[in-house]
Amino acid sequence: MTFDLLWDALAPVGRDRSTGGYRRYAWTAADATLREWFAGEAAARRLDLVVDRAGNQWAWWGDPDASGPGVVIGSHLDSVPDGGAFDGPLGVVSALLTIDALRAAGMRPSRPVGVVNFGDEEGARFGVACAGSRMVTGALPRDRALGLRDGDGTSMAAAMSAAGHDTAHVGRDDEALRRIGCFVELHVEQGRGLIDLGRAVGVGTGIWPHGRWRMEFAGEANHAGTTRLADRHDPMLDYAAAVLAARELAEKHGIVATCGKVVVEPNGVNAIPSRVLGWLDARGADAGTVRALVAELSAGRDVREESWTPPTPFDTSLSDRCAAVLGDAPRLASGAGHDAGVLAQAGVATAMLFVRNPTGISHSPAEFAERGDCLRGVQALTAVVTDLVSGDPA
Amino acid sequence: MTFDLLWDALAPVGRDRSTGGYRRYAWTAADATLREWFAGEAAARRLDLVVDRAGNQWAWWGDPDASGPGVVIGSHLDSVPDGGAFDGPLGVVSALLTIDALRAAGMRPSRPVGVVNFGDEEGARFGVACAGSRMVTGALPRDRALGLRDGDGTSMAAAMSAAGHDTAHVGRDDEALRRIGCFVELHVEQGRGLIDLGRAVGVGTGIWPHGRWRMEFAGEANHAGTTRLADRHDPMLDYAAAVLAARELAEKHGIVATCGKVVVEPNGVNAIPSRVLGWLDARGADAGTVRALVAELSAGRDVREESWTPPTPFDTSLSDRCAAVLGDAPRLASGAGHDAGVLAQAGVATAMLFVRNPTGISHSPAEFAERGDCLRGVQALTAVVTDLVSGDPA
Repeated sequence: MTFDLLWDALAPVGRDRSTGGYRRYAWTAADATLREWFAGEAAARRLDLVVDRAGNQWAWWGDPDASGPGVVIGSHLDSVPDGGAFDGPLGVVSALLTIDALRAAGMRPSRPVGVVNFGDEEGARFGVACAGSRMVTGALPRDRALGLRDGDGTSMAAAMSAAGHDTAHVGRDDEALRRIGCFVELHVEQGRGLIDLGRAVGVGTGIWPHGRWRMEFAGEANHAGTTRLADRHDPMLDYAAAVLAARELAEKHGIVATCGKVVVEPNGVNAIPSRVLGWLDARGADAGTVRALVAELSAGRDVREESWTPPTPFDTSLSDRCAAVLGDAPRLASGAGHDAGVLAQAGVATAMLFVRNPTGISHSPAEFAERGDCLRGVQALTAVVTDLVSGDPA
Repeated sequence: MTFDLLWDALAPVGRDRSTGGYRRYAWTAADATLREWFAGEAAARRLDLVVDRAGNQWAWWGDPDASGPGVVIGSHLDSVPDGGAFDGPLGVVSALLTIDALRAAGMRPSRPVGVVNFGDEEGARFGVACAGSRMVTGALPRDRALGLRDGDGTSMAAAMSAAGHDTAHVGRDDEALRRIGCFVELHVEQGRGLIDLGRAVGVGTGIWPHGRWRMEFAGEANHAGTTRLADRHDPMLDYAAAVLAARELAEKHGIVATCGKVVVEPNGVNAIPSRVLGWLDARGADAGTVRALVAELSAGRDVREESWTPPTPFDTSLSDRCAAVLGDAPRLASGAGHDAGVLAQAGVATAMLFVRNPTGISHSPAEFAERGDCLRGVQALTAVVTDLVSGDPA
């Protein structure tokens, strides 16, 4: 099976024709197609498919229950709204091709190798990123997960049931966790680090601390034509000021801050809004700096934390081993969250490989990686797994 | 029939329980209920119901085709998103009660009296305000009207057909126009003019020039966590700056400007937007000043006009007659557009009566008028129509 055949099979799934971007949201029809595709690829390779309590798919070569924990590779297949083709799928496709390469080379792994497809990594539908890995590790408790609602008011419980996943056992899954000896996630880079270094593949050092905050601006709905400026309580003005303040503070602190989502009520051309909800995403190398930005922005504003993830370093010895196998590959931190970060937080030995992104663009239909770099990524992952299943356990 | 009975029958139609506001959009189920209610009230009064080519409803006391053009009163029943109970319905209810009062007084009108329910005044669904009156006068051409689409992509033609209105004859309706001798629209005031004057009812002088503009801010979608500030093209920042600039310019020019609606793509918490569309509503007493604001705001920005309505004075002799009948009622201009303005533009002799709004709030669930003031409004409209159907034609 070649890279192109796998890639082309995924290309049309959940693609919006008008934007060219992907809309692969958890527990939708597109998601079901992706899961069927994954199960089909597992079956074609005679891998044993296991679906954990949270709905994540695991395809095992070898029996981790009999032979001890295995080396897990893989990533996710879902997308942000109008996302790109690479964020997630590149890691899953590369993992399947790694199995093929190991077999073609006649490898007999010293321990099981698993390929994982984590569900709902982007949190595009229910608002919680890495929901699949957070559920399986217990970081997202069962009740909170099942009660999450999408924009249409559908609960995650209802969405799971409708998609055929039994919600009775949703929750931390110790059996699934016990099977993971270590996890190596390959992912397209989402910034410009490897461009500047002139390298196709790098090794992750960890994930920046990051969080999401909801800013609420209350106002008074009124007629746009008949309400004097002096009589207005227009929350759109407060929102606009907060957007500009967040950017200024990010520049001052040398971190990144983004206002990418806004919900306006009633959102009518001729109505002063009654309420504007804006979301802030802030991240940086240092947790204290991110916290400082949010504290300054919160002065005089209603800002509530929706999520916070502290800095997550990856496993040092596993990462060193990856870098050594790859000829002293460059190291880089990730500004994006990943399932690898959630597993690392849960105590799993975890590493990441990044594949060069020639534009740095991600979460966009324009997201891209050169075919040659994707193939180098597969070779790198194959080399890493070969090392991990040949010698001593990491 | 008392004010309260009519009012209470309308109260639940299209009301959103969570906001308490009304969502009465053109050619929806709520709209059909309102039309049925209107037809029922016409039948209960033995008025002849005529639906014109655009779908506006006319209930006639007397035959305008036989006895010459009549005095038309009434307003509309649809609402903005989460609008109030009074904007529109107060005029229709007051018109029906005026018929009752004239009959109770034993009036035999010298010419026909009609009550109108204009469809789609707010333009909440298809984006064109006063669509019903604009269609019947030809200001909104047939092809443009039928091709308008709502947020779900449904065309007005499809929406009309689904609601049972035959679209074959949509267009300027000379027969309907010929029946209108003059039009007096009673409406809740949408500002604070009458509060300051200490009067319950005022007479309109005309409608401010006003327009809607669409501002497009193009950017580059990218990941919120991995894209350096220097590498960003974030259109949310440009939108925020425009919102604040519009307000500053409005203060400088002494007019009103509002950014009440925004559409962000893809509107994800962790994605720098690829595009932000913002709408500007600007109005003022003087057309040149409104134009000047838009010109200044457009410098370096992609701003396109979606609609423009020049200043619309109401008929001077009809307005003078109304004011005289009402004991030298105060005069006030309207910052809001109305069907009365569209008819005036089409050459119909038109006047408006405004009923005091004790908060000045409109286009909001909090929109309100005191019951006593509503009854004074009915009395005023009754006095005006009595005058118009007793003496010489206006």
